[in-house]
Parts: sequence; C-alpha cells; structure tokens
Amino acid sequence: MSDPKSWIADRSKTFDSSGIRKVFDLAARLKNPVNFSIGQPDFDVPNSVKEACIQAITDGKNAYSPSQGIAPLLEKLRHNIASRYEHSNRDVFIASGTSGGLVLTMLSLVNPGDEVIIFDPYFVMYPPLVKLVGGIPVIIDTYPDFRIDVSKVEAAISSRTKLILFNSPANPTGVTSSQAEVKALAELAASHNVALISDEIYSQFVFDGILHSPADYNPDTIVIDGFSKSHAMTGWRIGWVHGPKDVIQTMIKLQQFSFVCAPQPAQWAGLAALDVDMASYCRDYREKRDLIVNGLQDLYEFSKPGGAFYLFPKSPFGTGTEFVTKAIEHELLMIPGGIFSRKDSHFRISFAAPNSTIERGIDILRKLAKS
Amino acid sequence: MSDPKSWIADRSKTFDSSGIRKVFDLAARLKNPVNFSIGQPDFDVPNSVKEACIQAITDGKNAYSPSQGIAPLLEKLRHNIASRYEHSNRDVFIASGTSGGLVLTMLSLVNPGDEVIIFDPYFVMYPPLVKLVGGIPVIIDTYPDFRIDVSKVEAAISSRTKLILFNSPANPTGVTSSQAEVKALAELAASHNVALISDEIYSQFVFDGILHSPADYNPDTIVIDGFSKSHAMTGWRIGWVHGPKDVIQTMIKLQQFSFVCAPQPAQWAGLAALDVDMASYCRDYREKRDLIVNGLQDLYEFSKPGGAFYLFPKSPFGTGTEFVTKAIEHELLMIPGGIFSRKDSHFRISFAAPNSTIERGIDILRKLAKS
Repeated sequence: MSDPKSWIADRSKTFDSSGIRKVFDLAARLKNPVNFSIGQPDFDVPNSVKEACIQAITDGKNAYSPSQGIAPLLEKLRHNIASRYEHSNRDVFIASGTSGGLVLTMLSLVNPGDEVIIFDPYFVMYPPLVKLVGGIPVIIDTYPDFRIDVSKVEAAISSRTKLILFNSPANPTGVTSSQAEVKALAELAASHNVALISDEIYSQFVFDGILHSPADYNPDTIVIDGFSKSHAMTGWRIGWVHGPKDVIQTMIKLQQFSFVCAPQPAQWAGLAALDVDMASYCRDYREKRDLIVNGLQDLYEFSKPGGAFYLFPKSPFGTGTEFVTKAIEHELLMIPGGIFSRKDSHFRISFAAPNSTIERGIDILRKLAKS
Repeated sequence: MSDPKSWIADRSKTFDSSGIRKVFDLAARLKNPVNFSIGQPDFDVPNSVKEACIQAITDGKNAYSPSQGIAPLLEKLRHNIASRYEHSNRDVFIASGTSGGLVLTMLSLVNPGDEVIIFDPYFVMYPPLVKLVGGIPVIIDTYPDFRIDVSKVEAAISSRTKLILFNSPANPTGVTSSQAEVKALAELAASHNVALISDEIYSQFVFDGILHSPADYNPDTIVIDGFSKSHAMTGWRIGWVHGPKDVIQTMIKLQQFSFVCAPQPAQWAGLAALDVDMASYCRDYREKRDLIVNGLQDLYEFSKPGGAFYLFPKSPFGTGTEFVTKAIEHELLMIPGGIFSRKDSHFRISFAAPNSTIERGIDILRKLAKS
C-alpha cells in the first residue's frame, strides 16, 4: 500500500495558513459580526461589465483565448499604457488575476536560490510565492511608518538579488509611497540590474494626489494590475502585466503550460470595464477612509492610508492575534498583523464595508481601546 | 541601465513552443483551411450551463470563492465520486481547469530532482509542467500501438520516482487503456509507493465500453477531471481533482497562494453542467471517429481511438513536421507528432469538427497518401 503523506513536496511545508484559519474558525461562531476582514470591495461588478460578460457567453466566446489574451483587450491596454509611458520595449498580456501575474513573474524570473526583496508588512501571498519557485524572501522592515528607506534596500541587495516586490497603495497598510520614494527605488533597481515588480492592483483607489509608479522612472519596471479590486471582479480572475518585451514573452510562454489563458468571457468583460469611470467608487472609499481615520485617530496609532481600503493600526494591548481574538469576542472580525508580517503587533482593518458597519466597528474599537 | 533579458529564469529556457508556432505561422496564410488542429469540442457550451453562469453573474456571485471551491459543487462532486469509489480517505477541490489541477499536483508533490514517469506520446503540457517545478521527466515510449507495458514502467521506477502521469482516453492518440493495463499500472504504483495521476479530462468521450480508471484498483490514485472538453468550457477554466485527503489539502493550501480560486461564476455553471446528459454529444463524436477511421484505414497506419477526439496516424512519408507542412500546402491544418513526442514520425488529427469538414479532410489526406 502507498503512503500519500510521504509524497508531499518540501515547498508546501515551508508555509502554512493555520494562523488565519484559527481566526476564521473563531469567527465562524459569530452570527452577524462587524466584518472588517474582507480584502475585496463591498460593491458588485458594474452592470455594463456584467452585461459584457453575459454577451460574450451568449455569443459563444467560451473557448480558450490565445495565451496572451484576446486582441481587443490587449490593444486597448496597449493604448492606455502607451499614453502614460513612452517605453518602446513595453509589452502586455492578460493574466488570471494579479495573482496569476505574480505566479508567472516568479516562474519567469526566479531561479532556486535567488533572493527577492519584500517590504514588511507585505501582501500575504508574497513570501509563499517566492518560496513556491525556490526563491529566498529577503524581508525589509518598514515599521513604524511603512515608508521605504532606499538605503535599507541598497544594503539588502546582494549578488543573488533577482527582484524587488513593490506594492503601492499597499495591502495591508493602505500606505501609498511618495514620488521621492518611488523614484529612488526605481533608480536603485535600474542601477543594480534588479527587476522591479510594481503590484498596482489598488491603482484605482488612490485618495490623495496621483499614483506614482516606478515605471515612471525605470522603463524596465514590470507592472501588475487587474480588475479584481477596482471593478469587484475578484472571482473572475482577470488581470494584466506589462513590462519589458522579453520578460512578457517568457510569461506568455509559461502561461501556455500552466494557466493556459485567463477566462475568456471575463476578458470581454474587462474590455467593457476599461470604459467604466470608477471615480465615484474611489470617492466613496475615500469617505470611508476619512470616517475610520477620524473615528480612531485619537485612540489608535496608525499611518493614514493614502489608498486601497485598509488601515493597519498598532494593537492597543497584546499581540495582533490577542487583540483580534478579543475583538472577535465583541463581534468584530479583523485580521491579525502577523499574517502580513514577521511581527504580530498590529491588525488589519478592511473598510470596504457599508458606512453603518464602519460606524459599528469604530464603536467597538473605541470601547476595546479604553478597556 | 538594467538588462531584462538577463533576468529570465533557467526553467523557462528548458522548453519552447517554436515548433508549433512555425506550423501556425504557415497556417495563418490559409483563408479557409480544413482545420484538424483544434484540441477542443466544435459545439458551444450547453444552454442550461450558460444560463447558470449568467444567473450567477446577475446574482452577484462574482467575488472570490473559498480556495477549495463553492460548497454545492463540492457536495455534488463528492456524491458522484462516492457513488463510484468507496474510498474513505478521498477528498476533492475545484481547480482552474485540469491544467490548474496539474500545476497544483506538480507543486504539491514534486521536489526538484524528483522523477516523473510520462508515456510518449504525451499531452504537450506534461514535460514542461514537470520541469516547471524542477522535476525530471522520465519518458516511456509506447509506439507503435500506444499500449502501456507495465514491465517497462517497473523498469523505469527508481528511488527518485515521485509520480506517474497517466491519461486515458489519451491526447494525442485517442487510445483508451484496457482494464488489464489500468489495473496492472494501478497496482504497480501502489506497490512502489509512487503517486499515480490519472488525467481523465476526456472521460465523457469513451466510445467503446466504459472508462477504466486506476482509482478502481488503487485507492490513492489522484484523479483530475474537468468541464473543458465535456461541456466545451475550455475558456471558463474549471476542473476538479480528487484523491487522498492529505494531497488534496496540500493542493488547496497551494491554490491559496497561486490561483486563489477557480472563477466563481463558472463554478455555478459547473454545478448545472453535472446535470446535463452529454451522451448524445459522445455518440456524435463516436460517429465522427468512425467516419475518419473508415475514411483513412486503408491508406494510413494508426491505432483506432477508443475515446477523446484525436487520431494519431503515422506519416505516409517524411517526418510528421514534413507531412504536416505538405498538408498545409493543400489547405489542411494538423499538428506534427513531434509536439507530443520525442519522435516526429506521426501527426495528430482532431476530428472535433463538422462532418463535412471531416470529409473534406479525408479527401485531402487520401490524395496526399497516394502522391
């Protein structure tokens, strides 16, 4: 007889999701919690986008698309990208969500033993993604203000450094990097021949000023973006990656042998999504940001989020996990900071929720801080 | 300045798709070819399945699903699986197509340096998938009859053998393995504690008798199946994997950090798809099989396909690539066998085409064989 447990590969043992599962197991007992744990918009896909998807299905656009994506969506994205960046060597393809783009980036660029620089706190997928392909995460601490100190990055670069994973607006902090930070990081990467990945999935949710992309300062920046967060299409698995032609062509080749293609009907929906003005959604989320910032700033320590829909305060007592566990007892569901960090001193609030829910959450958090 | 070409990881250099691209470049010049190259059904998604997808979109089921998939689909699959296999330890999850299931199988089981046994000719993705995770493909030649010789498999098993990739009905040959072959392979894998993956994506297209699955004889078999080929949902990216609980749980964990989840609306469509009787589609394809077999058997050498929608004849002259190049000159598009094999002596016909197209193709092939 065989022993299936003995078959499991080592890479899957290097990370686990038991921490977050414990929190959700606790939360599962709650009947109607204030839910600040959801990493996606609280609105539904805009109607014109739904209609485009339905039309594609009805019209029989249900088979494989080309590996790189459907031509009209690529063309429109190319146009949008070219209107912002005048990089002659920039190409684009459609991925199965930004996660699909991230997986293909890692597979395309990271050899076993290569180092990948990640800023802590980080999007929960980053370290496992690096380990998935045999890479070594090199973690740079950005506490307490979550600003990027380029001298720290330079000190972390070694001969094995393959890439830097950058994310602004950031999950879990909501912090947007300043123009000066972005420029310095972009130039540093170029000067060391290190690939710079800019995960811009929250690009539509920038509350103050404009999005500063490292691609503004480094023409070889690989940019990952998508419709999941901007258009509430998280379950449709559709995003895109643009960057240097050789890199994009490699990703398309690897897509053929892994994801095959992004879901076709959702690609047609993406084409319609590019025509939807999401500015009012962004304004709504800015109001939500102001609501929660004003509701908590006298009692909690945090960096004011410039984008996304997250706030990452320091626990007023105990570890992040202890505080979140306490909050669950008070019907408030959040994510402990240890999920996004080597430290477990903070917690993540997602304010992608109705204003009434945010107000209930503020009340509970104010009581907890005073307790 | 940076040099993006220097960033490309080694794994992407171990395979290329230039062979097939050359064929398609030639084919792109054709205006209205007889197209025998398409690896997917020639019918559209059944209406009730489209409607279920549209309903899900309209109802706002557009966000992330749980990593393992939506509960009702899992429940129905569990019921179907349990009604065939009485394996107490069997679990299931929803993948982004069978390709997604294959990627997660490799990531979950194959350490760098592990060996994976593959039967030649093979589905085009198998060797690259193994290399993607650092595994070593061990190729077993099954020419000329594409039968599985278990003594050859036993001889190929080493201390580094992690798994065997098995596919029946097979792409590109259409051959279905006999009960005796399947049983012997299943028992061999169990006796050597080697994981056995049964890629059953063509399970709905078995023309003669029933599908023999190694899971009938080895309770630890990992079965990969999906809706892509059976319900023409190739562009919807939805499949499933069932197997030993520890293995499935590992795949779900890795899915969280890669695919995230299969597209949600397509999962609701999958639930409806399980209620659609596809028997008439299978009968249609059997007729097509008979049409092409009867049309070519006096002039071409091949194994009669027992399933799928492929025929894999020997080239009457030259290599597979040479013959396919010649056929393209006669407006007939097929795939050279070298794409699916270390040998380039055959070519693949997909007979998933209207009968009139099949008849035109037969005429051209008969002329070519006599020329």
